[in-house]
Amino acid sequence: MPGRELLYIKIANSLEQQINNDTLKVGDKLPSIRMICRQHGVSMSTAQFAYYQLEAKSLIEPRPQSGYYVSNSFRKKLAMPGASKPERRPVVKTVSDIIENSFDTAAEKNFTVFSRGVPAVQLLPVAKLNKSMLQAVRSLPGGGTIYEPLQGNEKLRTQIAKWSFNWKGNLSEKDILTSAGCLSAIAYCLMAITKRGDTIAVESPCFYGILQLAQSLGLKIMELPTSPQTGVDMDYLKKTIQKNKLATCIFVSNFNNPFGSLMPDEHKKEAVRLMEKYNVPLIEDDIFGDLYFGDKRPTCCKSYDEAGMVLWCSSVSKTLAPAYRVGFIAAGKYRHEVMKIKLFHSLSSTSITHEAVGSFLETARYEAHLRKLRKTLYTNYLQYVRVIGESFPDGTRISRPQGGLSLWVELPKKIDTIELYNTAVSKKITFSPGHMFTLQKQFSNCMRVTYGLEWNEKTENSLKLLGRLVKAEL
Amino acid sequence: MPGRELLYIKIANSLEQQINNDTLKVGDKLPSIRMICRQHGVSMSTAQFAYYQLEAKSLIEPRPQSGYYVSNSFRKKLAMPGASKPERRPVVKTVSDIIENSFDTAAEKNFTVFSRGVPAVQLLPVAKLNKSMLQAVRSLPGGGTIYEPLQGNEKLRTQIAKWSFNWKGNLSEKDILTSAGCLSAIAYCLMAITKRGDTIAVESPCFYGILQLAQSLGLKIMELPTSPQTGVDMDYLKKTIQKNKLATCIFVSNFNNPFGSLMPDEHKKEAVRLMEKYNVPLIEDDIFGDLYFGDKRPTCCKSYDEAGMVLWCSSVSKTLAPAYRVGFIAAGKYRHEVMKIKLFHSLSSTSITHEAVGSFLETARYEAHLRKLRKTLYTNYLQYVRVIGESFPDGTRISRPQGGLSLWVELPKKIDTIELYNTAVSKKITFSPGHMFTLQKQFSNCMRVTYGLEWNEKTENSLKLLGRLVKAEL
Repeated sequence: MPGRELLYIKIANSLEQQINNDTLKVGDKLPSIRMICRQHGVSMSTAQFAYYQLEAKSLIEPRPQSGYYVSNSFRKKLAMPGASKPERRPVVKTVSDIIENSFDTAAEKNFTVFSRGVPAVQLLPVAKLNKSMLQAVRSLPGGGTIYEPLQGNEKLRTQIAKWSFNWKGNLSEKDILTSAGCLSAIAYCLMAITKRGDTIAVESPCFYGILQLAQSLGLKIMELPTSPQTGVDMDYLKKTIQKNKLATCIFVSNFNNPFGSLMPDEHKKEAVRLMEKYNVPLIEDDIFGDLYFGDKRPTCCKSYDEAGMVLWCSSVSKTLAPAYRVGFIAAGKYRHEVMKIKLFHSLSSTSITHEAVGSFLETARYEAHLRKLRKTLYTNYLQYVRVIGESFPDGTRISRPQGGLSLWVELPKKIDTIELYNTAVSKKITFSPGHMFTLQKQFSNCMRVTYGLEWNEKTENSLKLLGRLVKAEL
Repeated sequence: MPGRELLYIKIANSLEQQINNDTLKVGDKLPSIRMICRQHGVSMSTAQFAYYQLEAKSLIEPRPQSGYYVSNSFRKKLAMPGASKPERRPVVKTVSDIIENSFDTAAEKNFTVFSRGVPAVQLLPVAKLNKSMLQAVRSLPGGGTIYEPLQGNEKLRTQIAKWSFNWKGNLSEKDILTSAGCLSAIAYCLMAITKRGDTIAVESPCFYGILQLAQSLGLKIMELPTSPQTGVDMDYLKKTIQKNKLATCIFVSNFNNPFGSLMPDEHKKEAVRLMEKYNVPLIEDDIFGDLYFGDKRPTCCKSYDEAGMVLWCSSVSKTLAPAYRVGFIAAGKYRHEVMKIKLFHSLSSTSITHEAVGSFLETARYEAHLRKLRKTLYTNYLQYVRVIGESFPDGTRISRPQGGLSLWVELPKKIDTIELYNTAVSKKITFSPGHMFTLQKQFSNCMRVTYGLEWNEKTENSLKLLGRLVKAEL
């Protein structure tokens, strides 16, 4: 019966493949003979033959009254050729390689990840958030399994609206729409108000996530001159908006990533006035707004927005829980368009993490946590400045962030920070080369280092080592 | 001092606004005087004046040693004009109104929601999922606050790979990328492989979420003739693919929503062969695949895909937990492009719900739950057929789904189901008018009713009432 023979070999082969690629791991139980029969529409004996085949190869073993399991013995019996040992990590050549690898690098142990744009887990209120999660599971209908209204979790929206009082936003929960993090919020806004081929304006340097997103949506990107202290150059902005048809501007008005710059209130007002006059919506990324080093929470462009021109986006990814994916948008008069994009692309948010953050914000915990976090970040920043001053070569320049998480370091012109990146990675250190923050030929001698790590001996030594690597390149 | 006077009035006004729009609710604590000083850069006396102002209006009240609270008394003292009472719900005229309202309707109590495309919460294994959530909080580093690798949660990917053996998919965890639900998976795929102006082909009728998404991405949509039994018309597909430049096809190969049709294995093989020959990627939406009424799990187009042309998308939204937003993609040779879109648009998934589903699938619970759910859905389906047979007018035709959640009902030609929808909503019943499932002039006398509800007296009565409403329209 050649047909039957083929069938059992086919089943055996596909299981063997799953064992070889570790989808089925040593000790895993295999599907029952009956299950095999049902799923593949074969007889008991065909299924049994398939398993005999695998057993004969020592790949699986039967256990009495329990079924078949992936065996360990095949690994011992069949001597395998030694594994090859090429460089573990691809040598990266381009900015997009670095960005794509950055997640996986960040997950690796023993790395000092100066490239991570979020606070280290030790700085997050994990135990209290865990409690809020349990509370959310208990209080949500169906334990958070069922869809909530399209606009998003009500508790969260109410809390964000209340919080907006701190930056003179005066939002109501009706103004707010939730999203899966701030980047997803910006993505919704861009998809709602731009179309392929449109031109948008951003700060320069600009967070690479925004550049990549805008590029992938087919937008043309104008990079505006930006001061490391006061943000986008207002005169230049004015000229640009007069001369060009802009679909939108995206500004990180408070503690721009990577500069750490802060737009003064007067600039924010002026920006809103310009947008209104020329009918250009402004996407404001306020993700760092609560991480101020000064004595008060800065306002936002949204604080001065009477005509509804500002699409204010933020999240708790820099302050509470990056992987909860909790973001929010107050989209002004574009609210309905943005809501439609949310409907088309994702239907609903993850209720449970959104409810948990809502509960967390209801208490005074958030303010207490922020006070601590801001203090830690500011202390870290001072330590970085000290060590960079001591260890980096003469001619190094650094930004003076007034909040946020990142420090911009300009090295002597000769240094190419993409080359330096490869050297640093081989020493288990990462940072973000300056070229990631532009689409033009600039910043090749710059880097962003974030100070969201715990400050300890290892961090300090890594930063010193980075300084030595820079010196060695010279 | 007119400047100071203005300032305290401004602060008072913005708080009053928050009280009036219920952002600050009766009993809520107001920010402390000190906080007001800090945030608004005003003196203690200015802040205190602002609060006096509000107190004078009976909007807030001080409590000793505790601060100011939103008062209840102003609601009593100031008699308010009676509220107007227009129709609670907007009378909907267009398909997109219905879609946008559907979430909010679904959340309302006492409605019988035949329009809901997910199983009722009573059919979900909520208690066991809650356990998996607690386990996820405990086992994830940082309680699930920190980013996981871009590709997605490893436990989940491993389980989906193992599960793929059931439909002869033989995926490895490396083939799989996670997403925030199936619609988001399809969105990533479309953004990765199409561009504005491209033409794509879909089944007709087609799930409205896919139509809306594709439209919003600027794609032209070709609707293909589709059998309620065997899915897309293969001869027609062949001619279409020969004559047109298609960027992709999207097929719900197993239990198409809304038809419930099932592509036979031969059609699946043929479809894959065609896509390969004409180099057209196929997006396969397999979200209903595990909800079969027959004796075995149907295969997918992906099961026959040797060249990597199929982008297989699915989720647990129809089987476990819609609002967990857990979806996954095996994108074949388009894997890298799709991963980039995930990076650009969302960075990372919500680790905690993805880990919870991974844990749930590790046990035998999923298979046990599915067996029960399939039985319930099949029984429901039979009940629907009986009641529709008894209560709907002669000439009514219904589909014979072989799995999934939805029943397609074709009413006598005279009936306009959008008009019927408005009548039904006034009786607290919703369904999905047929016109939602096409961009053309068709299906105006059709409706989708889903049988994911608990079958009980209320459901039965609502379905009977729906029949009477149809008869009344004739």
